[in-house]
Amino acid sequence: MEKYMKQALELSKKGYGRVNPNPLVGAVIVKDDRIIGSGYHMYFGGNHAEINAINNASESVEGATMYVSLEPCSHFGKTPPCANQIISKKIKKVVIAMLDPNPLVAGNGVKILEENGIDVEIGMLEDEAKKINEVFVKYISRKLPFVLMKTAMTLDGKIATYTGDSKWISSDLSREFVHEIRHRYTSVMVGIGTVISDNPSLSARRSNNESIQPIRIIVDSHGKLPLDSKIALTAKKNKTILVTTSMLLIEKENKIKEKGIEILKVSTENNRVNLKEMIKILGEKGIDSILLEGGSTLNFSFLEEGIVDKVMTFIAPKIVGGASGKTPVGGRGIPLIKNAIDVKNISAKVYGKDILLTAYIREEDSCLQD
Amino acid sequence: MEKYMKQALELSKKGYGRVNPNPLVGAVIVKDDRIIGSGYHMYFGGNHAEINAINNASESVEGATMYVSLEPCSHFGKTPPCANQIISKKIKKVVIAMLDPNPLVAGNGVKILEENGIDVEIGMLEDEAKKINEVFVKYISRKLPFVLMKTAMTLDGKIATYTGDSKWISSDLSREFVHEIRHRYTSVMVGIGTVISDNPSLSARRSNNESIQPIRIIVDSHGKLPLDSKIALTAKKNKTILVTTSMLLIEKENKIKEKGIEILKVSTENNRVNLKEMIKILGEKGIDSILLEGGSTLNFSFLEEGIVDKVMTFIAPKIVGGASGKTPVGGRGIPLIKNAIDVKNISAKVYGKDILLTAYIREEDSCLQD
Repeated sequence: MEKYMKQALELSKKGYGRVNPNPLVGAVIVKDDRIIGSGYHMYFGGNHAEINAINNASESVEGATMYVSLEPCSHFGKTPPCANQIISKKIKKVVIAMLDPNPLVAGNGVKILEENGIDVEIGMLEDEAKKINEVFVKYISRKLPFVLMKTAMTLDGKIATYTGDSKWISSDLSREFVHEIRHRYTSVMVGIGTVISDNPSLSARRSNNESIQPIRIIVDSHGKLPLDSKIALTAKKNKTILVTTSMLLIEKENKIKEKGIEILKVSTENNRVNLKEMIKILGEKGIDSILLEGGSTLNFSFLEEGIVDKVMTFIAPKIVGGASGKTPVGGRGIPLIKNAIDVKNISAKVYGKDILLTAYIREEDSCLQD
Repeated sequence: MEKYMKQALELSKKGYGRVNPNPLVGAVIVKDDRIIGSGYHMYFGGNHAEINAINNASESVEGATMYVSLEPCSHFGKTPPCANQIISKKIKKVVIAMLDPNPLVAGNGVKILEENGIDVEIGMLEDEAKKINEVFVKYISRKLPFVLMKTAMTLDGKIATYTGDSKWISSDLSREFVHEIRHRYTSVMVGIGTVISDNPSLSARRSNNESIQPIRIIVDSHGKLPLDSKIALTAKKNKTILVTTSMLLIEKENKIKEKGIEILKVSTENNRVNLKEMIKILGEKGIDSILLEGGSTLNFSFLEEGIVDKVMTFIAPKIVGGASGKTPVGGRGIPLIKNAIDVKNISAKVYGKDILLTAYIREEDSCLQD
């Protein structure tokens, strides 16, 4: 029944921010229309959801039905395969929201279960499940981080007034949600211009919950990072990567390293960081997700390179005017409307006093509605 | 019952574009839970809705209940008072959505009905009724036109690419809706910059219905109107007003008049048209509503002067980037976010491929949700 899968999906979300680059998974075990056990994947390297649910069961799971948000694994990873446990515990039926896009699993979990006489049903609340694991779906199949570009603008399209003032455009509730996303995402990225103009700390500060701090990544082609910026001053506490090029001078490089900041040098393209190369290396380093928080120049470069997956735009009920006020996406720009970047599956919802628009850049991501 | 009032409200909308500056009104007469008559205010100067409903009734209306979207009038205007007719036809009960904000009626209609022993119920679907008549509500009480600022922008806040290309940002369905609004509104207004850059015709072109053409109003402080613009070339067919100042040269003035364009001269303020004076005069001329279609400089001036009532922003699922692309509201701008113009009751709905955001500038207009 869908209510059990819904519960499994809700449970899976408790792992947000803690399991990356693993998937979020929840499992519920049901017998005689009663939940007798439940669990989720709590942290990277920890037990899988299925095992936690079995271990937590209040009675024997023999003959029971398991609802699990992702196909049980069939391979030895950090933990032994879940499929084997399900079989040995004589669970009768397994209902699965989505197959595992991991090429190491890819239907093998289902195959093993079925070969051992277990009823398997696939696809219940599949869209919700895919949405929850959109980061994992991309990362496991392409080894590239999932990039969410987040902006906040006024109703007339400004991210700052003509004087540069931007505090605060979006409402408290919207900003609270941004901290939630920073907690969920493995990394948060800005361009050096934003560090210089806003001096952000880029930490996750959820008001009612402990937060996992994202890795802070600064794109700084020429090595302009101010050594007294909040980022530099807190880098020994919160992991920070400065992505730069050979244009960074050696003295500055040493000073940056002394602050505890990791330097990642990539090749240049048009006299700035080669973003495609950067994103590939970050993926190889295990970074499955990037929350891109601007500024507008870096946003355009990311979009131009085709490395943005999802866009979230908070629109505040304010108008500031100003012909020279900055907009969310700057840079050179696209000359003609007919060549604009089309976003897919745009959706709107009220978020506090603001409207939150969510969209995807590619069609294949668009099954995943917000 | 609300279903009858809903029908009266739906009927009232048939008068859109044809009754200004009168209110939109619909009426339904019910006997034994059957509709025996219905009508609406069809055109300015024509019968009121109540009279049309009585005249259309298929049987005697004696003892029946009338559902009417606005308080029946008690004064002699273009037609005799409706209240008298209702009384003489022995209608038993009148259900009214909203009282008439017209100071000439203002509860007098209800008073006369009640004094003559008719049951009166007030306030059924009042919010919907007020929304439908938001133009009338403002105009009748303040003799100033209701101003709707309409813009269309990309998801990154641009009304044009950095090269100036803007065709087309919004989808066919959104543009069709703009033609519907031009049909409904008495006038459509742009600044001279928009005439020069876009050469619009500003006509109402509804694809499936005959359209009432709005009066076209061009704000042109210095008299720059190109005599070969579409506006100038079609002014003998579609009424056009050029709002200007004493800075308009006499030779140009004569040439503009020859095109069939009415000249409205107002005083200057900061070397341009005094907008507050303009709006007052337009109200006195019987213009109850203005659809303000930009450009961004005029939009800011209107907002700065506090003469915008409602804002509609179409957001297209496109990103064009460009640090110099124009945004919906330009001009000098407001220096600090904390001093931004706050819009009220913002709401979002999907409109074709676009998202349509609607909001009001003042709290008192905000009972009127879109």
